[in-house]
Amino acid sequence: MSGQQATYMRTEIGEQPAAIRATIDALLPRAADAAALGSDTRQVLFIARGTSDNAAVYGSYLIQTHAGRLATLASPSVATTYRSRVDLGGVLAVALSQSGQTEEIVETLAWARDCGAATLAITNGDGSPLAETADVAFVTRAGTERAVPATKTFTTQLAALAVLAIGLGADLDPGELRRVPDEIEALLAAPQPELDPIVAELAEDRGVVVSGRGFAYAAALELALKLKEACYLHAMGLSYADLLHGPIAVVDARTPAILLAAESGPTLQGTVDLARRVTGVGARAYGIGGGRLAAACTRALVGPQLPEWLAPLGLIVPGQLLTEALARRLGIDPDHPRGLSKVTQTA
Amino acid sequence: MSGQQATYMRTEIGEQPAAIRATIDALLPRAADAAALGSDTRQVLFIARGTSDNAAVYGSYLIQTHAGRLATLASPSVATTYRSRVDLGGVLAVALSQSGQTEEIVETLAWARDCGAATLAITNGDGSPLAETADVAFVTRAGTERAVPATKTFTTQLAALAVLAIGLGADLDPGELRRVPDEIEALLAAPQPELDPIVAELAEDRGVVVSGRGFAYAAALELALKLKEACYLHAMGLSYADLLHGPIAVVDARTPAILLAAESGPTLQGTVDLARRVTGVGARAYGIGGGRLAAACTRALVGPQLPEWLAPLGLIVPGQLLTEALARRLGIDPDHPRGLSKVTQTA
Repeated sequence: MSGQQATYMRTEIGEQPAAIRATIDALLPRAADAAALGSDTRQVLFIARGTSDNAAVYGSYLIQTHAGRLATLASPSVATTYRSRVDLGGVLAVALSQSGQTEEIVETLAWARDCGAATLAITNGDGSPLAETADVAFVTRAGTERAVPATKTFTTQLAALAVLAIGLGADLDPGELRRVPDEIEALLAAPQPELDPIVAELAEDRGVVVSGRGFAYAAALELALKLKEACYLHAMGLSYADLLHGPIAVVDARTPAILLAAESGPTLQGTVDLARRVTGVGARAYGIGGGRLAAACTRALVGPQLPEWLAPLGLIVPGQLLTEALARRLGIDPDHPRGLSKVTQTA
Repeated sequence: MSGQQATYMRTEIGEQPAAIRATIDALLPRAADAAALGSDTRQVLFIARGTSDNAAVYGSYLIQTHAGRLATLASPSVATTYRSRVDLGGVLAVALSQSGQTEEIVETLAWARDCGAATLAITNGDGSPLAETADVAFVTRAGTERAVPATKTFTTQLAALAVLAIGLGADLDPGELRRVPDEIEALLAAPQPELDPIVAELAEDRGVVVSGRGFAYAAALELALKLKEACYLHAMGLSYADLLHGPIAVVDARTPAILLAAESGPTLQGTVDLARRVTGVGARAYGIGGGRLAAACTRALVGPQLPEWLAPLGLIVPGQLLTEALARRLGIDPDHPRGLSKVTQTA
């Protein structure tokens, strides 16, 4: 990596508007396929790991709050390690994998099918084993992703999940989804005057808590994972409710909190309150969101102007920029963190 | 806290054999109540936060691998923040709360009932709002717990979950469950020659990864929470599969891994392999488990001699001792960590 040249990660962050637009264009016409597949089911079970698992958290909130169905996360080892049979009649199993190659996820989706579930894959891997295993495949259009930390494959997964929710009857406006790429474009062009000071301060820290609730929780988990992967930072992703159940004790002068919230919606006030609590104990609170959150934080990055149900697609973007810049400042090549490869196999 | 006197936490760790025995004696005869309640349901949905959430993870593995039912974790904010209606027909909702007073959990269980679920509470709070809300209440017999970090309320929750699984038809031997108190008694009496050296080394670290898979994952999550609460350590609890999906990058000379595994069962080999991978990159691996794991680790604590399905009740015990000793060494009163109180209210 040369200091002059943009990293793959930074380039791919910038490719997100086009990738999300292409994904929406490809998948929105296929919402009816999800509707048909889901018609005999009453709940959704997500199968995923890592970044895809964080996308699944978004999907679970979206489907539960807007499509009236239970939507929870599977434990793949029940299938792959314990080889148990579970009654999955009435279940729509949705597996997410960037590459579609991770054997554990392919095997768990096949297990779900054998246990009676209808199956859908969300993957960037057209023709991949995962896509071939599923009854219906939603192939995202992220293009090739070279940096190990996933960026555009994550946000295109979220877009695919929004289409899935619409297909399952969610009371959501596809027009709002179509406006997401423009909003992320605007967000990428907006100045982030606090980015450099936040990077400089985080470079001195060993740990950070990353928190959000409801929809924003998915973006918080994903940002925590990025900071662990690419900056080797002890980043703990927690919903703010869980944070208050114990881990708040770790927040101190050396351990700031990064708090994410949509500009509106029922979790904003609690996140603002949490920011005040964090600064009240002498710790730093960094916000990613709108003006109300920023006003309660020590420093803040500008978030997207999106309705709450779509906010995670934009909230993660300043976090991606933060991760990429912090990695470089720490002397780490964000494209190739130690110990990781692009397709992860877990057995 | 005086240096001469045992902390409440240490005393309560020692009370676990009696508390678990009393809980089993009280609840095992009531397995039939769970059977009757669950007879019209086909899956379990757990509702919990914090330590109780970690107990729920144990319950989800136990029920999925031994009782043939899907068992997953709810997102309470779907009920309390978003106030959504979700179809919960055919669902047995199981809420866990030490005190039975946490409003969010009581409200979410009431929501589950209103959405069509059968409801069961597992709580140490006899006559608590949670117990009153549920169709059936399994009241644990932990007695009064004074230390803020939960110990005996956690292991008695696990015992109650074992009874629930048996009630739901799991192919498990109640006699093995009845032997758990004696085994924990023996474990508490066993020498732990590596405890002091591990405490001394961890006192110099800012972060640690705590990992296990399958059943042991619940104990790993719980130990990570204890270390965050009582030692302010940046402790990241991860299944080993998730760990390999990115966060392995944080393990280094200053960030050891604590790995938990039962003496036998299908996750042992993977945990041994992970220990070798951790030491292979120059990091310390601390084991909690049997001899095979210990041999692959830098140092190890002796774990319980229990079958895998009951191992978490014993695996957490050396972790509790470690937490209590590390807190004292760091000058923290483990009974009263900063920022926490015994009943947590999250709105």
